[in-house]
Amino acid sequence: MNKDQVKHCDVCRKKWPSAEYRIAEFAQSIAYLHHDQFFPGWCVLILKHHATELFHLSPEVNAQLLQEVTLLAKVLQQTFNAVKINYALFGNLVPHIHWHIIPRLENDPAIRHAVFAVDHEPKILTAQEREQRIHLILQSLKLPEIHCFP
Amino acid sequence: MNKDQVKHCDVCRKKWPSAEYRIAEFAQSIAYLHHDQFFPGWCVLILKHHATELFHLSPEVNAQLLQEVTLLAKVLQQTFNAVKINYALFGNLVPHIHWHIIPRLENDPAIRHAVFAVDHEPKILTAQEREQRIHLILQSLKLPEIHCFP
Repeated sequence: MNKDQVKHCDVCRKKWPSAEYRIAEFAQSIAYLHHDQFFPGWCVLILKHHATELFHLSPEVNAQLLQEVTLLAKVLQQTFNAVKINYALFGNLVPHIHWHIIPRLENDPAIRHAVFAVDHEPKILTAQEREQRIHLILQSLKLPEIHCFP
Repeated sequence: MNKDQVKHCDVCRKKWPSAEYRIAEFAQSIAYLHHDQFFPGWCVLILKHHATELFHLSPEVNAQLLQEVTLLAKVLQQTFNAVKINYALFGNLVPHIHWHIIPRLENDPAIRHAVFAVDHEPKILTAQEREQRIHLILQSLKLPEIHCFP
């Protein structure tokens, strides 16, 4: 790991995501609600330590992170009754590994397109709406058949 | 698995991707060059059997598929000297699990954006260019430090 990269990394400097969007902590990652909720339930899953590519991770960390991605995807599908889950790891702006996990709903305005291709005004929730949505996801994470530690 | 889904799945019916774009076969997936090479080296990694979400896979298959995604990402980074790899699993049009693995190069025309957000004419290679590009990737896959079976 390059110390200079960490020094300039918005995730490592705790500039992004904002703490009020935090949902739950897993072994290798922390789940946040995405600040833009135009697509309801859009979450980001942030690797706890600095790395920028899957092939820079040890096989064990990579596999554990995948389990956390998969768990959150399942929970979002159940919580929002999604017809499809979209998974994306880009890092073009913020290279620190973060997975976008996006439930696509039946009434999705652009179901045939990647959300990144859909021009829209970001939907920022009120504090109350945000807390309600986080609570909703947390409740699903706590279901007996789900194994995690929120 | 829903038999009707398989019956209507373009991947299972071998309608997509076209065989001439095939690069290599792994334990759980087959790698193809994406037909649109506007972003050079863009590949798709197709799960061999029909499934539509990571949480529908057994943990073992999911983990093995991740290893194949990670291997191909590493190979594409090396082959194209990419500054970043993008990984995406959507399935909005073709639900059968297929990973987009996209090397982003130093001279990328829109490095800050997801490729899906970049309006462009698809770049279709000639047969010779396509074969050369596949050969280039295959050569990297065969390097001694890479473990796979192309």
